Amino acid sequence: MTHSIAILGASGYTGAELVRLIATHPHMRIAALTGDRKAGMAMGDVFPFLRHLDLPVLTRIEEVDFSGIDLAFCALPHATSQAVIAALPRDQKVVDLSADFRLRDPAEYEKWYGKPHSAPDLQAEAVYGLTEFYRDEIRTARLVAGTGCNAAAGQYALRPLIAAGVIDLDEIIIDLKAGVSGAGRSLKENLLHAELSGGTHPYSAGGTHRHLGEFDQEFSLIAGRPVRVQFTPHLMPFNRGILVTVYVRGTPEEVHATLATAYADEPFLHVLPLGGLPSTRAVGGSNFVHVGVTGDRIAGRAVVMVALDNLTKGSSGQAMQNANLMLGLDETTGLMGAPVFP
Amino acid sequence: MTHSIAILGASGYTGAELVRLIATHPHMRIAALTGDRKAGMAMGDVFPFLRHLDLPVLTRIEEVDFSGIDLAFCALPHATSQAVIAALPRDQKVVDLSADFRLRDPAEYEKWYGKPHSAPDLQAEAVYGLTEFYRDEIRTARLVAGTGCNAAAGQYALRPLIAAGVIDLDEIIIDLKAGVSGAGRSLKENLLHAELSGGTHPYSAGGTHRHLGEFDQEFSLIAGRPVRVQFTPHLMPFNRGILVTVYVRGTPEEVHATLATAYADEPFLHVLPLGGLPSTRAVGGSNFVHVGVTGDRIAGRAVVMVALDNLTKGSSGQAMQNANLMLGLDETTGLMGAPVFP
Amino acid sequence: MTHSIAILGASGYTGAELVRLIATHPHMRIAALTGDRKAGMAMGDVFPFLRHLDLPVLTRIEEVDFSGIDLAFCALPHATSQAVIAALPRDQKVVDLSADFRLRDPAEYEKWYGKPHSAPDLQAEAVYGLTEFYRDEIRTARLVAGTGCNAAAGQYALRPLIAAGVIDLDEIIIDLKAGVSGAGRSLKENLLHAELSGGTHPYSAGGTHRHLGEFDQEFSLIAGRPVRVQFTPHLMPFNRGILVTVYVRGTPEEVHATLATAYADEPFLHVLPLGGLPSTRAVGGSNFVHVGVTGDRIAGRAVVMVALDNLTKGSSGQAMQNANLMLGLDETTGLMGAPVFP
Amino acid sequence: MTHSIAILGASGYTGAELVRLIATHPHMRIAALTGDRKAGMAMGDVFPFLRHLDLPVLTRIEEVDFSGIDLAFCALPHATSQAVIAALPRDQKVVDLSADFRLRDPAEYEKWYGKPHSAPDLQAEAVYGLTEFYRDEIRTARLVAGTGCNAAAGQYALRPLIAAGVIDLDEIIIDLKAGVSGAGRSLKENLLHAELSGGTHPYSAGGTHRHLGEFDQEFSLIAGRPVRVQFTPHLMPFNRGILVTVYVRGTPEEVHATLATAYADEPFLHVLPLGGLPSTRAVGGSNFVHVGVTGDRIAGRAVVMVALDNLTKGSSGQAMQNANLMLGLDETTGLMGAPVFP
Repeated sequence: MTHSIAILGASGYTGAELVRLIATHPHMRIAALTGDRKAGMAMGDVFPFLRHLDLPVLTRIEEVDFSGIDLAFCALPHATSQAVIAALPRDQKVVDLSADFRLRDPAEYEKWYGKPHSAPDLQAEAVYGLTEFYRDEIRTARLVAGTGCNAAAGQYALRPLIAAGVIDLDEIIIDLKAGVSGAGRSLKENLLHAELSGGTHPYSAGGTHRHLGEFDQEFSLIAGRPVRVQFTPHLMPFNRGILVTVYVRGTPEEVHATLATAYADEPFLHVLPLGGLPSTRAVGGSNFVHVGVTGDRIAGRAVVMVALDNLTKGSSGQAMQNANLMLGLDETTGLMGAPVFP
Repeated sequence: MTHSIAILGASGYTGAELVRLIATHPHMRIAALTGDRKAGMAMGDVFPFLRHLDLPVLTRIEEVDFSGIDLAFCALPHATSQAVIAALPRDQKVVDLSADFRLRDPAEYEKWYGKPHSAPDLQAEAVYGLTEFYRDEIRTARLVAGTGCNAAAGQYALRPLIAAGVIDLDEIIIDLKAGVSGAGRSLKENLLHAELSGGTHPYSAGGTHRHLGEFDQEFSLIAGRPVRVQFTPHLMPFNRGILVTVYVRGTPEEVHATLATAYADEPFLHVLPLGGLPSTRAVGGSNFVHVGVTGDRIAGRAVVMVALDNLTKGSSGQAMQNANLMLGLDETTGLMGAPVFP
Repeated sequence: MTHSIAILGASGYTGAELVRLIATHPHMRIAALTGDRKAGMAMGDVFPFLRHLDLPVLTRIEEVDFSGIDLAFCALPHATSQAVIAALPRDQKVVDLSADFRLRDPAEYEKWYGKPHSAPDLQAEAVYGLTEFYRDEIRTARLVAGTGCNAAAGQYALRPLIAAGVIDLDEIIIDLKAGVSGAGRSLKENLLHAELSGGTHPYSAGGTHRHLGEFDQEFSLIAGRPVRVQFTPHLMPFNRGILVTVYVRGTPEEVHATLATAYADEPFLHVLPLGGLPSTRAVGGSNFVHVGVTGDRIAGRAVVMVALDNLTKGSSGQAMQNANLMLGLDETTGLMGAPVFP
Repeated sequence: MTHSIAILGASGYTGAELVRLIATHPHMRIAALTGDRKAGMAMGDVFPFLRHLDLPVLTRIEEVDFSGIDLAFCALPHATSQAVIAALPRDQKVVDLSADFRLRDPAEYEKWYGKPHSAPDLQAEAVYGLTEFYRDEIRTARLVAGTGCNAAAGQYALRPLIAAGVIDLDEIIIDLKAGVSGAGRSLKENLLHAELSGGTHPYSAGGTHRHLGEFDQEFSLIAGRPVRVQFTPHLMPFNRGILVTVYVRGTPEEVHATLATAYADEPFLHVLPLGGLPSTRAVGGSNFVHVGVTGDRIAGRAVVMVALDNLTKGSSGQAMQNANLMLGLDETTGLMGAPVFP
């Protein structure tokens, strides 16, 4: 069986990544692609790497007939996304890749995103899309909220540890190294090759990055009490990939065993042997996640590292995994492609 | 039906790329991986990006039982390759990725590779592996010789033009820009990140690059008289991709039409509209090839550009395409993955 | 003696490069920096790499008191530049880095830049700034026009050869590989790291690049008859550097000897031994130029390669060299810094 | 006055960086260059970026006549360095760039470098070369030990804070991002462009990196009690630059004020306004250091970031600064070149 798919906001990187994944997906067919500013253009002109595909022309959202759409991916900017999704048929299955439905608490949304949420009912309905931890809810959800890519990486490092109570909840530091595609295709000076390449650029330091809202929500929920982590992201001169280096207090062996057990049956998560160090290059272009744990010469400290591809597992691959579940497919369908190296 | 595959020389980039392609190939299964210096190692330790796969441990070639192998890819260095293949069962289907069987004339081989060929009978038997032009012979071949990656790029630009007689055979200049993975995983100073990144490095200029042997052989064969092109390769600071900028004398419209017609039914070759400029980024990680033709303000001159991924279409993807044919499969099987961008 | 310098348009890369060069220049002092959109900002905020310097705040041009300015560098966009320079005191020494005064013929300017020149008298007055070939005129000039960076690279390869009559004037092909800083700090999608890095991107092919106007003017002047070259530029994933690969017809030895003789006494130009291949990495961050000549297996053909840093020797370093001459200083003053490698 | 300089081990990156710096140094002249494996070669062939300089041919150390050498830079590998320096005349001024004389305690040396020190008397004599903190001793020293590049970056972040008692000594985490030139010109698989580019690679995690020996020695000395920091280095895909992200417990304002005061008169260290984030690109190719302090949403925590160029301020520039002091010159001589950007 083939499901008809719409991608709303197909002219950005996450939209294009969805098209890439669907291109070899055995049970999906792209029925509509939208991109307001690029409406009327062929996708192969917006993204030459997709020119070999026979794809619908980009249209405006208003032109899409949702009656034949089995599932819509919404890859629009936050704030826009909530308005668009609110206007869709109420039985339309949707996987949203924006930040609009990640936070359940309207006050938290307003705090991190600077204005009130316009669709709090949908916010309440949405299921948080970190597949490995919300699999059952996602299977039956109508609206799934894709996680932040940084938020996904940090949670893969920490959720099982917080749940198992093997680390000190008040001593968690996440130092993140992120590739530039996470910032999208937007025209900003700091994203120019001449500015970004060849160096390391910290940003949104000091507890100001919006993905902290997700960490706060999820970690506190698991712990049953407020958890506040420290988080410092750095923009790196590569296109794909996130590595988080997470500093925790706990026994390295216990930390490692907890993660190894938690992810033992996960198709996409691989925990390296204790002391193994993951790297972003080993997961680039794929939905796989590598997790490493190493001890320190200071007893009782451990470092957890997680590497994933921000556009695949951190965003569009995760969305596809969730869509598979929502459509009753095996969640790995179309996602087992190996990373591209070198 | 699933075919059992051996990869001889799996510890280099082309070997690893074959593993990547087979990972999602519906009709192939890796039965043996060899790598003399890394024998005994797990493939996931040699190439961490493959750690999610359940693969045989690397062995020495002598340990492989070829009786159950339907097809062997040989990704060994030239000179080694001819000795290894000569020792295989004479009915073993083989796709060789080295330079050993590209040139039919033993004298030419010795001229370009510096020593006599030790298996001239196999050299005579081998079919040149540029799929689009040797498809029928490949289908029934036992031994197929993968082309040079640069040689593939240049031939996609020129073969139909030479065959059609629409360009001046004495006025062909190929200026090539190549990513570094084509040089393999060898430890050479000029391949270090600190040396190579951030710049442009010409090499093997002046008619000394070995892939000229393939150009000479193939172009002369097509033309029915000796053809000698000028060829200047440049090493570029990226990992995958080749762009050839080919300067020819001919009518741009005629050049374009000739290529567009020649490749109209090819599943992997896409000719851009006249004036379109291909780029390596639009084909990276895939088996697709983009071909562009542009005129010049000087009448009677045209520039043909071809972009492909040296590791996929230029090497392992081509090998897979040929293997599909040799095994009676659709040649595109397992090769329709879209490029990875950004 | 210290000369007071103004930099008009200091918020772009060429302006910042001028500041970098003046920072250690023993006889220059920056008296004024302008940048209309960034007026009021500290230079160290616009370019953090300059924060250690004690510099004037950016102002609007109207605020500059030119009475105390010994020489003004004008690093504004073309079209803007001609208006600004026309409004300066008529005895103000100016080195312009834009395209506005490179072409002597108003018709040629209009042809390549799309609108009529508004200051044809200044266009007639301006001296073309390729120092090695216009040294005497520059010394006494009031207004010097910096060359295009690509145009400089091509001319270093070809001027002596055309002058000496050792190559065929109708068979010249310039294949150019250029770093991205030549495109400036402008917000364009194709200049984003995510788009540009990791690949090769041809642009302005087919005889449409504006620097052809300079080639036409200069080469025809030297030859005493029209000369039209073929020119294909490629944008490369690095920030600084241009390599031109120039295909000519002539004896390699004669071509090499002609260039070696022409540049024997030049402080910044170095001709490699015959067969030597230059690379952009070996000149990055400096005013030096490396020139290589290699023969081909086809008799009577040679390839000339020139590597330079587009921002230094191709633009701001050249401007400084000319300014030195105009102020009666040794032309190498402040420019002998070695390239930065790795 | 011009001082005659020898560079022992000039065929590596730090040696070449010294040549670069001396090229425009007004009071130094290179009298000898050694490189055992490259003895007999011209420096311009080993490092084409230096070909414009008139330099001595590389020789073996035994061939150097030290009687005329005012100061020798020793840029040899550790272990080799101690043997070479022990054999030099005992009044020869030496700046060593290796690890051999950084640690004062022979037991610590053996612990971190795996074998006993062969010249413990020299180890005792050597002055630790972090200029800003050992200036007076360096001025009169005969033998100065250059610091580790990572060790320099971490100490610039922490020394004043430890000395002032404004941070918790048991809660210091250094997360380091380092460019690849710090690993030298050695042929290692992980340093190949194809392996390293485009990703983030942690290494020597868990308290195993040798520069921890320097942190332990220096921080404990300042604090008057043992201090053990946590340190995780990551190899990054760029050639020059180190950024340390240092997590401390203390009031951000106090941390910032302490650093700002400590470095107020330092010619090369610049403390950004509170909340300012440094980047490696803003110091590349220079001896300058940018220091930033930012608070966190969690009260009592601060992040200190330091960016420097590992080859200049982290190694050869530091060595030059120390050599200037040892020769009675102003310590900034030849080191005020601005960073190269973009």
